[in-house]
Amino acid sequence: MPSDTPAKAGLEDIVVASSSICYLDGERGVLAYRGHDIHDLAERATFEDVCHLLWHGRLPNRAELGELQSQLAEARPLPEGLLRLMRSIPPTNSMDSLRTLTSALAHYDSGANDSSPEGRYRTSVKLTAQLGSIVATSARIAAGGAPVAPDPALSHAANFLYLLKGTRPTALETRALDVALVLHADHEFNASTFAARVAAATLTDVYSAITAAIGALKGPLHGGANTDVMNLLLQIGEDASDARVEEIVRGKLAKKEKIPGFGHRVYRTEDPRATHLRRMSEELSRLSGHPRWFQMSRVIEQVVQREKKLNANVDFYSATTYYALGIPVDVFTPVFAVSRISGWTAHVLEQYSNNRLIRPRAEYTGPAYPQQVDRH
Amino acid sequence: MPSDTPAKAGLEDIVVASSSICYLDGERGVLAYRGHDIHDLAERATFEDVCHLLWHGRLPNRAELGELQSQLAEARPLPEGLLRLMRSIPPTNSMDSLRTLTSALAHYDSGANDSSPEGRYRTSVKLTAQLGSIVATSARIAAGGAPVAPDPALSHAANFLYLLKGTRPTALETRALDVALVLHADHEFNASTFAARVAAATLTDVYSAITAAIGALKGPLHGGANTDVMNLLLQIGEDASDARVEEIVRGKLAKKEKIPGFGHRVYRTEDPRATHLRRMSEELSRLSGHPRWFQMSRVIEQVVQREKKLNANVDFYSATTYYALGIPVDVFTPVFAVSRISGWTAHVLEQYSNNRLIRPRAEYTGPAYPQQVDRH
Repeated sequence: MPSDTPAKAGLEDIVVASSSICYLDGERGVLAYRGHDIHDLAERATFEDVCHLLWHGRLPNRAELGELQSQLAEARPLPEGLLRLMRSIPPTNSMDSLRTLTSALAHYDSGANDSSPEGRYRTSVKLTAQLGSIVATSARIAAGGAPVAPDPALSHAANFLYLLKGTRPTALETRALDVALVLHADHEFNASTFAARVAAATLTDVYSAITAAIGALKGPLHGGANTDVMNLLLQIGEDASDARVEEIVRGKLAKKEKIPGFGHRVYRTEDPRATHLRRMSEELSRLSGHPRWFQMSRVIEQVVQREKKLNANVDFYSATTYYALGIPVDVFTPVFAVSRISGWTAHVLEQYSNNRLIRPRAEYTGPAYPQQVDRH
Repeated sequence: MPSDTPAKAGLEDIVVASSSICYLDGERGVLAYRGHDIHDLAERATFEDVCHLLWHGRLPNRAELGELQSQLAEARPLPEGLLRLMRSIPPTNSMDSLRTLTSALAHYDSGANDSSPEGRYRTSVKLTAQLGSIVATSARIAAGGAPVAPDPALSHAANFLYLLKGTRPTALETRALDVALVLHADHEFNASTFAARVAAATLTDVYSAITAAIGALKGPLHGGANTDVMNLLLQIGEDASDARVEEIVRGKLAKKEKIPGFGHRVYRTEDPRATHLRRMSEELSRLSGHPRWFQMSRVIEQVVQREKKLNANVDFYSATTYYALGIPVDVFTPVFAVSRISGWTAHVLEQYSNNRLIRPRAEYTGPAYPQQVDRH
């Protein structure tokens, strides 16, 4: 028999399963992948290291890293049919395209429905490689450019910027995106990861679970927030004075409008990822010759902290970081997916390895039973 | 702070939210949509009635039903671009196609990202109409046929069979499929519906939430079971004697193999939907000139009941019902989606109407924190 009253709304603070992937202490502001603190990883690990860490439980040695880099390089080029599809579907929203193209990838993968652990792992590596190519190439085509072939000598972060812009990125640009990818790679049972696990628990395939996650990430209460942050800044305009920025934000708060990029379900402290992104946003905004985006962000952060006691989250400073890297605004949420695919697949593989169908109950609050069928 | 120990595995019997859509009493074997008993609905309502019931909370009067029928008829023809896509993506699994094509529909709907309640309702009606057309037309194209234009004078069930086979179905065939659609329309917080609600709770769009649900339905622990049931029967073969069927099933049970179509997370009694499907399977198998499929199913049911104390679920007799209707085996799970889209959209609309992000927690069981970054 189900219990009588619902768990806390939105399953807030409800532990629904165990997991060995992500350690998250919202009271102390700690985030760690497989026990490794996010600050250490942001300073010393690459995205490829983190993929290995999430999938295998430990950082790779040289040989393991080399092998993973080769596998990613091999999987990075997109099937010709997918490029045709990319050109033929009417553009709507970049997350709609990512959802459709990721789902369509399954049709070009003869191992898509291989349910062996090895097959599912291969799909995870493949999807991680290909999501970067899909997002960068879609954006390039949308901007009128021709697709660029991935360079096996470049890292995942560098390939993304190369496929997006057609020119090889600087070391600083590559490192900035790489850190952003490390910071976004996993975050325990966030909504998109949980959607992927609910799907995987029916023993559906990896593509289905990841497509579910992409659909969930799109929402403005989740990954969609980084786009909303940049759109707010662009709407205020680079020429606005600090006083004007403060006035606009206060006006929005007075009208009970939400300022995107603040607050988090889990953290009671500053989001440890925001610390790194703030620093990167400052450096990159300055180097790109547009320091105002960062300075305006600081003003917004201070006003929201003072007025609402809310801290900036991972989305707030990733917005200006991506903008300074020349990434188009409507590609910000897809870039989140380019990183989070590593965590999604780690969670999906963990779910398969010790599975139980996720099938909760509802408290029924509708019309009394039985109603009579009273027709016409 | 999260609680320390995980809720029961797979959220079994855990009430995660309230809902006014589906009343489900697993102890007494009661299923009701908005208070209306499933037995009454199976006997007296059509799928279109049930759509109105699920979406609006009550059965339609004549005018309301007419309006809904017109809206469905108007939405049933598929965009030309989607038909081209249907022909161009390499066929893999019919649920992969349904997932990709449903996601792609968003690109042909200028209202796909309309987040007003009216816009989301319009999308729900549209998706319900179009999922039938996608599944039937995909199957027809896969079998080498040319797409058929929907007939606005036909019901949803009749249109499905017409688009699938190219000939207008008999009244009995239409009624059989219609009853199956009524029986599958909703089932509280089943895995695919829950996946859709988790996605919708990020305030993502309806297409994203439904694509997530389709991915979850595909799994063999969920909608995928009806295909597995028919494949088991076909593997045993129509010529097998009752004794041979019993021997095969006993052999599988002895090897701890699962017999698909039995047992249910919620019901402790017979699944009330199985009662109707058993009757339809019997009648249709007889009329189609292949009574053995039903008779063999009865033998399997009796053996599993005796040996494992498990009851047949909704998937068990839907398999032979669909087979007798001439629906290809790999389209069985998509037919489940053609019905369940009504319940998915009702739940998604309910989630939007009183939303809170669904973001649970995990019990961390991984390496101790903090691990040192120990490189190469």
